[in-house]
Amino acid sequence: MQPTLNQKFKINYQYPVVFSRYIFELPNQILKNTLMQLAPSAAKVLVFLDHNVDRAHPHLRNKMQAYFEIHCPHIQLITQTITGGEPIKNERKHLFHLLSKIDQQHLDRHSLIFAIGGGAVLDAVGFAAAIAHRGIPIVRFPTTVLSQNDSGVGVKNSFNDFGKKNFLGTFAPPLAVINDSTFLETLDERDWRSGISEAVKVALIKDAAFYEALVHNAEAINNRNLDAMEEIIHRCADLHVAHIGLGGDPFEKGSSRPLDFGHWAAHKIEHLSNYQIRHGEAVATGIAIDCIYAHKIGKLSGEFLQAVLNLLKNYGFQLFHPELLPHKEEWKLWEGLEEFREHLGGELTILLIKGPGKPEEVHDIQKEVLLAAIKYLQAWEGEKPETKMLINNHAS
Amino acid sequence: MQPTLNQKFKINYQYPVVFSRYIFELPNQILKNTLMQLAPSAAKVLVFLDHNVDRAHPHLRNKMQAYFEIHCPHIQLITQTITGGEPIKNERKHLFHLLSKIDQQHLDRHSLIFAIGGGAVLDAVGFAAAIAHRGIPIVRFPTTVLSQNDSGVGVKNSFNDFGKKNFLGTFAPPLAVINDSTFLETLDERDWRSGISEAVKVALIKDAAFYEALVHNAEAINNRNLDAMEEIIHRCADLHVAHIGLGGDPFEKGSSRPLDFGHWAAHKIEHLSNYQIRHGEAVATGIAIDCIYAHKIGKLSGEFLQAVLNLLKNYGFQLFHPELLPHKEEWKLWEGLEEFREHLGGELTILLIKGPGKPEEVHDIQKEVLLAAIKYLQAWEGEKPETKMLINNHAS
Ligand SMILES: NC(=O)c1ccc[n+]([C@@H]2O[C@H](COP(=O)([O-])OP(=O)(O)OC[C@H]3O[C@@H](n4cnc5c(N)ncnc54)[C@H](O)[C@@H]3O)[C@@H](O)[C@H]2O)c1
Ligand SMILES: NC(=O)c1ccc[n+]([C@@H]2O[C@H](COP(=O)([O-])OP(=O)(O)OC[C@H]3O[C@@H](n4cnc5c(N)ncnc54)[C@H](O)[C@@H]3O)[C@@H](O)[C@H]2O)c1
Ligand SMILES: [Zn+2]
Ligand SMILES: [Zn+2]
Repeated sequence: MQPTLNQKFKINYQYPVVFSRYIFELPNQILKNTLMQLAPSAAKVLVFLDHNVDRAHPHLRNKMQAYFEIHCPHIQLITQTITGGEPIKNERKHLFHLLSKIDQQHLDRHSLIFAIGGGAVLDAVGFAAAIAHRGIPIVRFPTTVLSQNDSGVGVKNSFNDFGKKNFLGTFAPPLAVINDSTFLETLDERDWRSGISEAVKVALIKDAAFYEALVHNAEAINNRNLDAMEEIIHRCADLHVAHIGLGGDPFEKGSSRPLDFGHWAAHKIEHLSNYQIRHGEAVATGIAIDCIYAHKIGKLSGEFLQAVLNLLKNYGFQLFHPELLPHKEEWKLWEGLEEFREHLGGELTILLIKGPGKPEEVHDIQKEVLLAAIKYLQAWEGEKPETKMLINNHAS
Repeated sequence: MQPTLNQKFKINYQYPVVFSRYIFELPNQILKNTLMQLAPSAAKVLVFLDHNVDRAHPHLRNKMQAYFEIHCPHIQLITQTITGGEPIKNERKHLFHLLSKIDQQHLDRHSLIFAIGGGAVLDAVGFAAAIAHRGIPIVRFPTTVLSQNDSGVGVKNSFNDFGKKNFLGTFAPPLAVINDSTFLETLDERDWRSGISEAVKVALIKDAAFYEALVHNAEAINNRNLDAMEEIIHRCADLHVAHIGLGGDPFEKGSSRPLDFGHWAAHKIEHLSNYQIRHGEAVATGIAIDCIYAHKIGKLSGEFLQAVLNLLKNYGFQLFHPELLPHKEEWKLWEGLEEFREHLGGELTILLIKGPGKPEEVHDIQKEVLLAAIKYLQAWEGEKPETKMLINNHAS
């Protein structure tokens, strides 16, 4: 028999996450310099633009065009407005629409794709870019708090299929990420707030000082102070970037995913609400549930639990939703636990916390304790009338 | 402004390419050992089986079942027969069929996918596996000469879309590759032969001694000597594996692709024949064209050119096809050059040879010289009647 051949190589990945304001204003040379450095021979840029960003920033397209004419005259710029929000991730026709534009514009692997939009647009465009010609380089311009501090700075893309959130996707680090905070000014109140839960999440598992900062900044954030938001976003993005780069498992081969604290419930809640509840909003609820659970099994003090619930409440999150409870014989949330295990693969691994910056993994969730936790949350929030309204409003 | 964050990490990739016979016979413990080592916790294997392999090896499924019951009783084995050959890469419904099976069987990232079949099946299943749950580990069992010596041992998968060969795909190294030469015994004459052109290709660009071996082995191969074929496959696979691992660009970021010698024309020929001409057959023609071209621009001696053409002929390849010539105003082959540039991205880069193991890149192809080369090939092969027949036969 012929001897076994052993293939072995490594790939280096590297990308900057840049912070700026007014990125397409002519005096701002950051984008120009980034492209000159990272893609000096790019001749074509296809911009996929979230239509809600387009609507909220009506001069953006002209500004981009002018910027490229002055700073990058060797690059042909083509802009394509696309559906914004979760719908773009939900239907195959949207995916093939993105791919057909890539085809029609004859992009090659030395062209560039820009994705400008919320986390949903970045996920869908990122997926299309990753599979066309085995990967066209992409520059992400996240335009929501959540995408600037979390989803847009990482290495994943995704697309929903077979009724499952993020069933499709790849690991595909971008060429660069450009966080322009001035996009955030046009966010509605929900999207301004919802990404904060990811900051609470990462502070709770990694950084007690950041947790304190979040406690003190709630008022400034509620007053839409952009400087305060920039600080939170930078710190949160930094913790995410560091975790991915230094955590030892950037492409998530293992079953442990510390950054998914609060997420097992969050995924199910998003689904149950038919994606009317935002990812960030669902994460706030997920954090609340897991903290109550950790308290009930004796890992987290009652005092700190109250502090966390109050913090989330101060940032304006609605924590309890009736869908969390069992209905007749069925308890959808409980089923979400197995779905989460399947999504990660391997053994169930849930991260809980014992205090700020003190994570601990468990491999088993007790059904009765979980149910008690949900009821605790319901009582805590006093079943305010808004609870139901929030869901109904947005389901219409 | 907040300072730029710099993400930076590396990923190590590693996989064995194992050579054996009768891999699913009980005494053969190679597969069992490979799985124990590389996927000790896998609980489920979904096998996608090329239906032509299934037909040609009617006992295979029972043998696999028995093998797993004895050697890997902790693994649940599910087998799904799928379309074989290029059709599986050509229609989205096939892709979504593969994905739906992955969904229905609740595979997670700790499950395994086996792909058993020719290069087309490996490409399509590899693509589906790479994008489901952001990558389910795959073990490839190539069953054709071409896939055992080239496509199946590499890091790419692909899927045809928008009328373009391999428009979709990713770089996704497998968990392992298992080359069982006994599959090759049931190949028809065309598929037995066609993969040899990849061996000729890699010998011409990298290994003069291997080129000599190919000259001497033609008769044994034509007599379907399996030992001789195993040797050629091993050497060819070795050169491909080494090139990918040591060539400095495993995921093909640059525009230079030495392993694509003879391939610019090959891609177009496959397309023009509506994929009735096999990839390997088209590569033989592509090699012939590029060698004649290299001769005409003074890089390759007339003597060596004759030797290469005779070698390809001795392995039974039909080299000229009428579709290579311009037709009225249109010259499709010439258009293929630009398509190839686009597929690679960046500057046109074509590899030619000056002799065995002596490659040289050029960035420009002269239209008149190329036309003269095609006419030379036509004259050389004397426009035998089989030329047309081969295409018509298989187009029917
Ligand atoms: N890839 C990852 O690692 C990762 C991680 C977490 C979340 N996600 C995904 O991110 C998505 C959620 O992202 P999101 O919270 O940004 O929501 P989103 O993308 O759905 O955006 C929310 C809404 O705001 C609009 N919008 C975006 N920017 C705007 C702006 N500047 N002004 C006005 N309107 C604007 C959008 O069109 C949309 O209607 C989910 O699909 C989630 O699965 C991905
Ligand atoms: N991913 C890569 O790096 C790469 C490289 C080169 C080629 N390819 C792709 O590989 C494909 C060609 O692969 P191929 O030449 O193996 O052809 P193929 O997969 O089309 O197989 C040829 C025919 O043989 C049948 N078959 C397969 N194994 C058999 C067996 N043992 N006995 C009987 N019949 C059998 C198949 O069903 C098919 O009908 C093309 O799509 C090409 O683009 C991929
Ligand atoms: Zn999240
Ligand atoms: Zn090839």
